[in-house]
Amino acid sequence: MRPNNRALDELRPISLEAGISRYAEGSCLARFGETHVLCTASVDENVPRWMKGSGKGWVTAEYGMLPRATHSRNNREAARGKQGGRTVEIQRLIGRALRASIDLEKLGERQVIIDCDVMQADGGTRTASITGAWVALSQACNKLVEQGLISENPVTYKMAAVSCGIVDGTCRLDLEYVEDSAAQADANFVLTEDGGIIEVQASSEDVPFKASEMAELTRLAAKGISELCKAQAAALES
Amino acid sequence: MRPNNRALDELRPISLEAGISRYAEGSCLARFGETHVLCTASVDENVPRWMKGSGKGWVTAEYGMLPRATHSRNNREAARGKQGGRTVEIQRLIGRALRASIDLEKLGERQVIIDCDVMQADGGTRTASITGAWVALSQACNKLVEQGLISENPVTYKMAAVSCGIVDGTCRLDLEYVEDSAAQADANFVLTEDGGIIEVQASSEDVPFKASEMAELTRLAAKGISELCKAQAAALES
Amino acid sequence: MRPNNRALDELRPISLEAGISRYAEGSCLARFGETHVLCTASVDENVPRWMKGSGKGWVTAEYGMLPRATHSRNNREAARGKQGGRTVEIQRLIGRALRASIDLEKLGERQVIIDCDVMQADGGTRTASITGAWVALSQACNKLVEQGLISENPVTYKMAAVSCGIVDGTCRLDLEYVEDSAAQADANFVLTEDGGIIEVQASSEDVPFKASEMAELTRLAAKGISELCKAQAAALES
Amino acid sequence: MRPNNRALDELRPISLEAGISRYAEGSCLARFGETHVLCTASVDENVPRWMKGSGKGWVTAEYGMLPRATHSRNNREAARGKQGGRTVEIQRLIGRALRASIDLEKLGERQVIIDCDVMQADGGTRTASITGAWVALSQACNKLVEQGLISENPVTYKMAAVSCGIVDGTCRLDLEYVEDSAAQADANFVLTEDGGIIEVQASSEDVPFKASEMAELTRLAAKGISELCKAQAAALES
Amino acid sequence: MRPNNRALDELRPISLEAGISRYAEGSCLARFGETHVLCTASVDENVPRWMKGSGKGWVTAEYGMLPRATHSRNNREAARGKQGGRTVEIQRLIGRALRASIDLEKLGERQVIIDCDVMQADGGTRTASITGAWVALSQACNKLVEQGLISENPVTYKMAAVSCGIVDGTCRLDLEYVEDSAAQADANFVLTEDGGIIEVQASSEDVPFKASEMAELTRLAAKGISELCKAQAAALES
Amino acid sequence: MRPNNRALDELRPISLEAGISRYAEGSCLARFGETHVLCTASVDENVPRWMKGSGKGWVTAEYGMLPRATHSRNNREAARGKQGGRTVEIQRLIGRALRASIDLEKLGERQVIIDCDVMQADGGTRTASITGAWVALSQACNKLVEQGLISENPVTYKMAAVSCGIVDGTCRLDLEYVEDSAAQADANFVLTEDGGIIEVQASSEDVPFKASEMAELTRLAAKGISELCKAQAAALES
Repeated sequence: MRPNNRALDELRPISLEAGISRYAEGSCLARFGETHVLCTASVDENVPRWMKGSGKGWVTAEYGMLPRATHSRNNREAARGKQGGRTVEIQRLIGRALRASIDLEKLGERQVIIDCDVMQADGGTRTASITGAWVALSQACNKLVEQGLISENPVTYKMAAVSCGIVDGTCRLDLEYVEDSAAQADANFVLTEDGGIIEVQASSEDVPFKASEMAELTRLAAKGISELCKAQAAALES
Repeated sequence: MRPNNRALDELRPISLEAGISRYAEGSCLARFGETHVLCTASVDENVPRWMKGSGKGWVTAEYGMLPRATHSRNNREAARGKQGGRTVEIQRLIGRALRASIDLEKLGERQVIIDCDVMQADGGTRTASITGAWVALSQACNKLVEQGLISENPVTYKMAAVSCGIVDGTCRLDLEYVEDSAAQADANFVLTEDGGIIEVQASSEDVPFKASEMAELTRLAAKGISELCKAQAAALES
Repeated sequence: MRPNNRALDELRPISLEAGISRYAEGSCLARFGETHVLCTASVDENVPRWMKGSGKGWVTAEYGMLPRATHSRNNREAARGKQGGRTVEIQRLIGRALRASIDLEKLGERQVIIDCDVMQADGGTRTASITGAWVALSQACNKLVEQGLISENPVTYKMAAVSCGIVDGTCRLDLEYVEDSAAQADANFVLTEDGGIIEVQASSEDVPFKASEMAELTRLAAKGISELCKAQAAALES
Repeated sequence: MRPNNRALDELRPISLEAGISRYAEGSCLARFGETHVLCTASVDENVPRWMKGSGKGWVTAEYGMLPRATHSRNNREAARGKQGGRTVEIQRLIGRALRASIDLEKLGERQVIIDCDVMQADGGTRTASITGAWVALSQACNKLVEQGLISENPVTYKMAAVSCGIVDGTCRLDLEYVEDSAAQADANFVLTEDGGIIEVQASSEDVPFKASEMAELTRLAAKGISELCKAQAAALES
Repeated sequence: MRPNNRALDELRPISLEAGISRYAEGSCLARFGETHVLCTASVDENVPRWMKGSGKGWVTAEYGMLPRATHSRNNREAARGKQGGRTVEIQRLIGRALRASIDLEKLGERQVIIDCDVMQADGGTRTASITGAWVALSQACNKLVEQGLISENPVTYKMAAVSCGIVDGTCRLDLEYVEDSAAQADANFVLTEDGGIIEVQASSEDVPFKASEMAELTRLAAKGISELCKAQAAALES
Repeated sequence: MRPNNRALDELRPISLEAGISRYAEGSCLARFGETHVLCTASVDENVPRWMKGSGKGWVTAEYGMLPRATHSRNNREAARGKQGGRTVEIQRLIGRALRASIDLEKLGERQVIIDCDVMQADGGTRTASITGAWVALSQACNKLVEQGLISENPVTYKMAAVSCGIVDGTCRLDLEYVEDSAAQADANFVLTEDGGIIEVQASSEDVPFKASEMAELTRLAAKGISELCKAQAAALES
């Protein structure tokens, strides 16, 4: 049995609250159960130096976790003077995923900086980050259109992310922490609303797993992401 | 006229929500108007190396601001690899203030690490941090007593902090950002509930100010802090 | 047509030269065409602090690229004072992949540090690194058995890694740089010799791709990895 | 009794030696008893990037302590790769204090960089730094006028700094180290020659202190600073 | 007896392989016995900021050692976030030596960046680096002439470097590691092919040595460097 | 003609003031003309970790320059977060030179940390540092003998350091800045009082120089160092 009697293909209770930040051009507080991530999108009219004059824009992401977002306190990265390897890996993933969902030429020569800050962690922080960040990015792009800075919304794909894994021999959607820490395999999916693959990262945590298991995890992810995309649309409308 | 018709000696709407973190031993979401700071207190059974064997405990604090807590985005300190001077100055102030309110011998040889993370900034983030951190620290100490790890609550003084300043020639309590950025003088007070001075930092932002003005600012602070201490007590009771 | 008339499911010329380092306990110079990576395995009789007393060993990896391994010179990470995000991401992947192929209890409380240094880069440096590092690790483990420090070789799985991708609409095995930079999708596979999945990372570089394309890429990878595992065995025998 | 039979409102022997540096545009070796600080003012015809084109100048300060300026050796900050929190806090205070004493528009679009390096420490290094730095800054400004680069000396306020504290229940002026380390309260004042407040920082080191004690400390500081301003004027004249 | 029956004034087997890098404008794999250094010269059409507009070029060098180039593994400098003191000292020596052998005005306003990476170390890595780097630099300059970017080869002096030392009371040419670690004195020479001094660094490792011993070490170095310059010429011709 | 009509083999006015620091176990303010270096020796009863249990002591050195010790201001290394290459090179030289003059076994398992801080620079700061540091080290060792912590003074060699160079075709002793910046060759000598070589570093700044010139520079250095050793002895006696 999963915690809270969840079905194997059932997401945790999802809440996406758009526009939560007083200042940011786009924002979303994404909650996947007890995992809470504050995502903001900041528009910067400058692009990185190496893009100047290209006519194209850029989307980049940074990720952080509050020191006490987890069971025991983690050292503050700003105080250590260095982002950890896990942080670097995650923020690169978020950035790639978002850039894949947007037309950088239509964005124009400006940059959108995404910040995903984990308030509370209970598994799946990177996928909640991507799901919330897409809402924040969309909201910021809508604002650029409203302001007449661009004529057309550059967001090309509706997409979200979710983790799946094999726990106690069963394939499951949207692992929470107690499941994640006992998983035989762990996979993060970034898919479009109709199941197109933007990014997949899967690792065995124990024995290697089979291609057929990978297929089942992909199927679960597609189901979950279809639901998440509906929640994103609802969040943007309200 | 102050924004929102506030009286000169009136605090912004204050909300102190204790126990907001799922994991931390103590926590408080402190809101002074649109300034929102999440404060957590984490108990660590180890003390810093230089205190080992002293039989005394330690309280230390770290402060951070989410990159988009402000009107325009600030660089993430973890990404820059360095905490800024302002951050360092503030977190040293928070730590000193809290250590002054607690009996480190009664705490026993353990450490409480305070994290103050600014979700949204509208002036007075350091004083909101101290006010909220005192609640988180008290809650964590209560838990130590409940767990039988210490016999007596080591918190010695009820205290809080507030900023005051001179704006348009008038002394005002609890400046918000639009006032702060136009102030002729700016002062931060950490006082006990009955007005005892724990720490005062006052700076002229324009022409030097008079000792009589300093006295008036102190009077305003004592009034505000008396109210804040009541709000802290209420937050701890609920 | 692929460069050098390669078939879509054909590896570049592979050379794995074990024992190339005068000092390291295990080593392999891995060449996938013009991509050359020097891999060494260093045995350290200490484990990281957090593992002390666990009775288990550890395998970790570091990755670097000589500044002029590529068309234009990259800044030296040691001089910049920081490893780049790509480096961090890759060395974490190498470490995970190798730990998944070894029984850390049988290794005993000691650490094997893998260094993968790219002498020359022409695409696929991370997968060449993993493939060569497995040879270096195996050689180092053989030496531990020969020295009587452990009774049984702890390497559990024969595994290797290869990249695949979709270029000009065709799925291809083992992309070289000119293909990689034009790919619509790019995937790195770490598989056992019989196709068990240890890690998969796949990204679209342009439009999202389909699950059926993912399956074809996996099939190509399994074919290539089966050949690479034979080359590894041969390298270890000589 | 205070050390050396000093009266409660008596400064230590003060020596301010202007023009001590062979190269700097302004300089002062400030001695407050056994506390010795070398202060230099360097004129830089460039302003920080964010001030370019503003027509205004800037004054900034850096503070350092020789590793063996104190009883036991402190690690060299340059070797540790990081300025400590205390250093950061002090140099920000010095910079703010000096900027408050000068008209940045009259300075013109150039920067004065103050360096305060503690040769020997016996309490009160930050206030000796500010007092000496004001001399160095004034000397540098005089030189700018002499050179015809500006028409009017931009220094607006005559000011100095001193520490006061409560030791053994008595309020005292200009604490030396043995007093400072036993103080119940410790306050640093930056005042104009006629007692206008530029900056005050006061902390309890033990029990909170009273507003009436704060007033007495302020009175002592004003007396001391009046004397220090005379010494500064004398140093500039010679 | 020296290892391998070498005569006191005999170099180890020398191999200089020019053009070994697929991408670099100049390159040389320098082997002095078991010491192997890969040297590359990268032409950068930008000069450092402080040289802009000077009409002169610049040559700079960076040095690194693979972590397992030595008997036991050294920490990777990129991971430690800092180049060690020995590395800094060596790369400054390499840069000075090369700049002394070239006419920076004839080079034109561009920079050549030399990378010396030690694959395997058995004593004399800095002198092997200089010897190989001179070949790489010459090759890169030849290419600039061929491309018509400069009209005349700016390399002014044929030079190389070698270490000498006093071991067991005898002066010896080109120390290998076992000799180096037992040396009473250790000297590194950078000389022109006819014995002109570019740089000498000599240290006693035990008792101070005599000027007459220094003279003998210099004589040995001149002999060795004359041979190395012939090997360099041969490497550039092939 | 040299500045101030100095003879070619004449030192600048030398002043060595021992015991100048109130706190350090040994200290010396070394002045070579307008070059002023404050040298302190701090005894630390701990040795570096890798020497623990060896029964031997250690001597290490750190070097720094006040930001405005020179004609124009240099960035503060503590603020940049990194010691420059020149600093690293110099402090390694100072440390090696001092270790060569002392019997580390007689020192016992303790460390002497030398700090050389340049107050004012006019050429020859590294050689003034070594000369002054030897005095500080000797004084600290004398104190260890007086305190009965060691039975015999471990300083084995009387030694000092001086720079020489070729300027306008003439070999000169103890270059000051205007000469140094115009030198064709520049050499730093660390010699014992009777001319034994501890360390020599010589570089051509223009055309390579001859062995006969090197010999003349060595002769000049020996003359100067013999005089400096007399000044050191006098400083220690007073």
